[in-house]
Amino acid sequence: MSKHVLAQNQYGKAENRIVKVTRKGNGGTSRTESGGGSWHEIRDLNVSVALRGEFRDVHLTGDNANCLPTDTTKNTVYAFGKEHGIASPEAFGILLAKHFVSSQQPIREAQIRIEEYVWDRIPVPTRKEQHSFVRKGQEVRTAQITYSETTGLQVISGLKELTVMNSTNSEFHGYIKDKYTTLQEAYDRILATKVTARWAHSALAADDPEHDWDRSYKKVRKHMLDAFAETYSYSLQQTLNQMAERVLDNCPRVNEVRLNLPNKHHFLVDLEPFGLKNDNEVYFAADRMYGLIEGTIHRDGVQPVIATSDWIVA
Amino acid sequence: MSKHVLAQNQYGKAENRIVKVTRKGNGGTSRTESGGGSWHEIRDLNVSVALRGEFRDVHLTGDNANCLPTDTTKNTVYAFGKEHGIASPEAFGILLAKHFVSSQQPIREAQIRIEEYVWDRIPVPTRKEQHSFVRKGQEVRTAQITYSETTGLQVISGLKELTVMNSTNSEFHGYIKDKYTTLQEAYDRILATKVTARWAHSALAADDPEHDWDRSYKKVRKHMLDAFAETYSYSLQQTLNQMAERVLDNCPRVNEVRLNLPNKHHFLVDLEPFGLKNDNEVYFAADRMYGLIEGTIHRDGVQPVIATSDWIVA
Amino acid sequence: MSKHVLAQNQYGKAENRIVKVTRKGNGGTSRTESGGGSWHEIRDLNVSVALRGEFRDVHLTGDNANCLPTDTTKNTVYAFGKEHGIASPEAFGILLAKHFVSSQQPIREAQIRIEEYVWDRIPVPTRKEQHSFVRKGQEVRTAQITYSETTGLQVISGLKELTVMNSTNSEFHGYIKDKYTTLQEAYDRILATKVTARWAHSALAADDPEHDWDRSYKKVRKHMLDAFAETYSYSLQQTLNQMAERVLDNCPRVNEVRLNLPNKHHFLVDLEPFGLKNDNEVYFAADRMYGLIEGTIHRDGVQPVIATSDWIVA
Amino acid sequence: MSKHVLAQNQYGKAENRIVKVTRKGNGGTSRTESGGGSWHEIRDLNVSVALRGEFRDVHLTGDNANCLPTDTTKNTVYAFGKEHGIASPEAFGILLAKHFVSSQQPIREAQIRIEEYVWDRIPVPTRKEQHSFVRKGQEVRTAQITYSETTGLQVISGLKELTVMNSTNSEFHGYIKDKYTTLQEAYDRILATKVTARWAHSALAADDPEHDWDRSYKKVRKHMLDAFAETYSYSLQQTLNQMAERVLDNCPRVNEVRLNLPNKHHFLVDLEPFGLKNDNEVYFAADRMYGLIEGTIHRDGVQPVIATSDWIVA
Repeated sequence: MSKHVLAQNQYGKAENRIVKVTRKGNGGTSRTESGGGSWHEIRDLNVSVALRGEFRDVHLTGDNANCLPTDTTKNTVYAFGKEHGIASPEAFGILLAKHFVSSQQPIREAQIRIEEYVWDRIPVPTRKEQHSFVRKGQEVRTAQITYSETTGLQVISGLKELTVMNSTNSEFHGYIKDKYTTLQEAYDRILATKVTARWAHSALAADDPEHDWDRSYKKVRKHMLDAFAETYSYSLQQTLNQMAERVLDNCPRVNEVRLNLPNKHHFLVDLEPFGLKNDNEVYFAADRMYGLIEGTIHRDGVQPVIATSDWIVA
Repeated sequence: MSKHVLAQNQYGKAENRIVKVTRKGNGGTSRTESGGGSWHEIRDLNVSVALRGEFRDVHLTGDNANCLPTDTTKNTVYAFGKEHGIASPEAFGILLAKHFVSSQQPIREAQIRIEEYVWDRIPVPTRKEQHSFVRKGQEVRTAQITYSETTGLQVISGLKELTVMNSTNSEFHGYIKDKYTTLQEAYDRILATKVTARWAHSALAADDPEHDWDRSYKKVRKHMLDAFAETYSYSLQQTLNQMAERVLDNCPRVNEVRLNLPNKHHFLVDLEPFGLKNDNEVYFAADRMYGLIEGTIHRDGVQPVIATSDWIVA
Repeated sequence: MSKHVLAQNQYGKAENRIVKVTRKGNGGTSRTESGGGSWHEIRDLNVSVALRGEFRDVHLTGDNANCLPTDTTKNTVYAFGKEHGIASPEAFGILLAKHFVSSQQPIREAQIRIEEYVWDRIPVPTRKEQHSFVRKGQEVRTAQITYSETTGLQVISGLKELTVMNSTNSEFHGYIKDKYTTLQEAYDRILATKVTARWAHSALAADDPEHDWDRSYKKVRKHMLDAFAETYSYSLQQTLNQMAERVLDNCPRVNEVRLNLPNKHHFLVDLEPFGLKNDNEVYFAADRMYGLIEGTIHRDGVQPVIATSDWIVA
Repeated sequence: MSKHVLAQNQYGKAENRIVKVTRKGNGGTSRTESGGGSWHEIRDLNVSVALRGEFRDVHLTGDNANCLPTDTTKNTVYAFGKEHGIASPEAFGILLAKHFVSSQQPIREAQIRIEEYVWDRIPVPTRKEQHSFVRKGQEVRTAQITYSETTGLQVISGLKELTVMNSTNSEFHGYIKDKYTTLQEAYDRILATKVTARWAHSALAADDPEHDWDRSYKKVRKHMLDAFAETYSYSLQQTLNQMAERVLDNCPRVNEVRLNLPNKHHFLVDLEPFGLKNDNEVYFAADRMYGLIEGTIHRDGVQPVIATSDWIVA
């Protein structure tokens, strides 16, 4: 027996890629005899499962009696795709999280993390059947659903890899100057960032079986983009705050927003050696190093629940 | 002196990221005094330069008299952005390639490779000034421009990372069965691939200073997508051929198309152990291993010029 | 003014790559006139800075009076490389973290995260001067140093991307079987994982200016590898626990260990269709999906401080 | 029927990861009853298959009668691992390439590309059984084997991701200065690169069933590293040439060497604003943009066969 303490631990199968095809409408030329319909819709998810609970013996004595294999958690993802369909990442994650906790006594908490890759349709006007798609690229939609026997349901939605730029209306000056400061103050610069955002939903949303997660996602995304574009910025921190405030102002069931915004520096290239004036026209887009601005804004009176990134290099 | 032979060699600065902002219209609130205009447009390129020529002494004796530094090739990219603007990746590459060959005697051939990242506008209806953008994601546009003193100009356009899927209308059967064959014939499967395409332009296009490269790009892209969507497929090879043929049929100034199509396998998940019937609904999207289908189709009578990928794992 | 609450926030320059050359011994052929010595040593770090403190106005009003620019934090990293040298990632991070907090009133806490890339020497026996290196590859060494005005110093060391394998002495059976379980019990399997480890040091180590961080790193690494190799495993959880216990048993100044162990599945290939018996010889090494096993083990009586990965897909 | 020409085409299964365990010695505690032996050895390969031949109908008419499925080529890789073992990447690739061409009439040429990941042993002195490993990291070994009905066997070995650095003994000056040149001449700089190398073997090696490919690999690798370390460099081109010459001088069965050397720039940081002198001590290691130097050196009288990288951004 160990003389040390086993603290937080979890396990499960990570990155289960599932593509679900749904056929709507009648008829169609598909050879499949049932489930027909000529209008295809797809959802394309990457689902990770993490289970928490009574796993002390699994770690200490080699006794796996409390261990639901990660392989089983994978099977469950695919079987649930068939049994329940995928209405949205959040809805699918809620079903899975509740299932693991309710079906196995040693499992006290389950966390489902999902990435969704979105597809656009390639329309084929000459036929009734529509089943061709092109991946949208742009952002990846994310969701993290945690269900605990004791504390209930928590739903955090998000997105990542959404790259945005304002080619003007950004300044940066008035900052501290110490002995290591060489930065020139800027009164017109490019502001660009690759947005990673997460937002926590109130219990009103999480516990409402009718909540429209897709609609909610589109709305949050739109308000963040609008706030980014419309803010005359004196720092990326200020833009971050505006983006989060705008979401809280417009989405009553969102309680908390956390943003992780790398400052994708665009440096004005010095063209003077070549007898050219660079009037904010030609920039070098740098990769590394980069500023990294992170922050949480939440409604007054709620407890923030979104993990801060204590460790990760973005 | 070496007793061996120095054969093909080249050098230059790779991956010069340049963002060019152009301001159109009059007025605007930008603080920049010239180059004004409130309607901003951007081009965002990654430009690689490779020079070929009389570099024997650079390699053999440490004499750099014939060597234009890679740093200078980088400076030239940025200076040309200001001096000539960026009408399109191809037009910009042609200017650069011709410049290196014509300005330095030891340089006999220059190859410019470009990736372009496309941005969509974030519209702000409440103001006249428009300078906010979101990166489109989806495919990366590519161009390779080679200019040689002796053989002139060659322009190859392309794209990569364009992921497409047909959720039906794909079969695969009637193939060779040998002692290592276990694959079941498929009469209705998902066909998905991540398109890497390159197409070579005729001299009519390359040497025409009025050629509209952006329009040409959109047209080729559309025909490839349409052919992918409309082809009832008996193999990915057949789809590849249809995509290339469609481009050659519709774009008279394109002489040759090469496609590199990884078969992004979507395996039907066996749900029978769970008492469920999987009627082509739930798939596992695999990463590796993958089929890799590559081919060149060209007009009769022209010499193919696009490099085949003898080495690269895509 | 905001009606919402600005909660956890931080900013700084991420991923400052610094290479520091130190010359030891006398003489040598280096053209540099001072700092001579013919025996070169290098340290190669990627340093990320995050500052926490009184930044409310930066976010809310566009007033940057409390903001030390991220550019200055970058400059400080490079200047400190010259002024103080780099004795170890941990020692360098401690210097930086204390500097930011002590030199600027609004900064209340600084967190420095470091990756170190290790180089081996390419020996050149024919000359006295030794200044040639090959990057070791294998694991990346990590360190996270947090210094707070109120709670003092916390040092977490770590490593990542250390891939290990036992080709036998691993079993997995006796687990829960539910309606979604299809996994066969295994009595001899490959166990492979890519180790991400972090371990927290006691105040005895963190506050000891003579603590030998390099020696400590080598010792922890060795005990983890040994425990991995020597454990006859009934689950990856059990191996995880053994690795952590071994470190705590042998390194008295380490208080807590957290491991993140993806189960890099090696599936036995079914060769029966080809009339071949696969006696645990030929495996398919899969990428995704994968089991993901995470856990913290700490000494009795100490508070765990290492962040659990609530969000990240490893 | 097509009015266009189907030119170079190929297909096959890419990136088949195979791990082969071999047990040597007698006894041991392994539960496997046969193939025993307590001394385990492993080879870990990523094998890609490309087939060329009579595939016109596959592309044009949907007739797959000449198509060996990519799935079968995958199965063959795993079955051959059992039937023939993996003596070396080259030997394994030769077996596979000859098999495909000789067993199916439509297949006229096969190209096998292999990456090998090397593992070191974790020794466990307290037991006789040795079956624990840690991945070496550092370079990836590569091989490309092409077998053609008409032109026979061609073997190209290689490596990639081998990062090396000289912290002195590198200069760069005497180059062309044009109107875009701003680079300062350097008389003592860091020279660092990430080596991608390929070398073609003579028929004497390729056709010799006793050729020791592992020994050959070690020898070429050592001579390249030695030449890198020992060359006092006036340009990366000169170093490239020395590395290739050294191999040709010492390895009589190697006919041709191609090197792809990105110049991993290390920029001296300007510390003067902070009152510090940077005597070639503190460098910023940049990622992008980078010089890219490529070249082929071959024996007099042989035809170079290694593909030049017309397209790829490294």
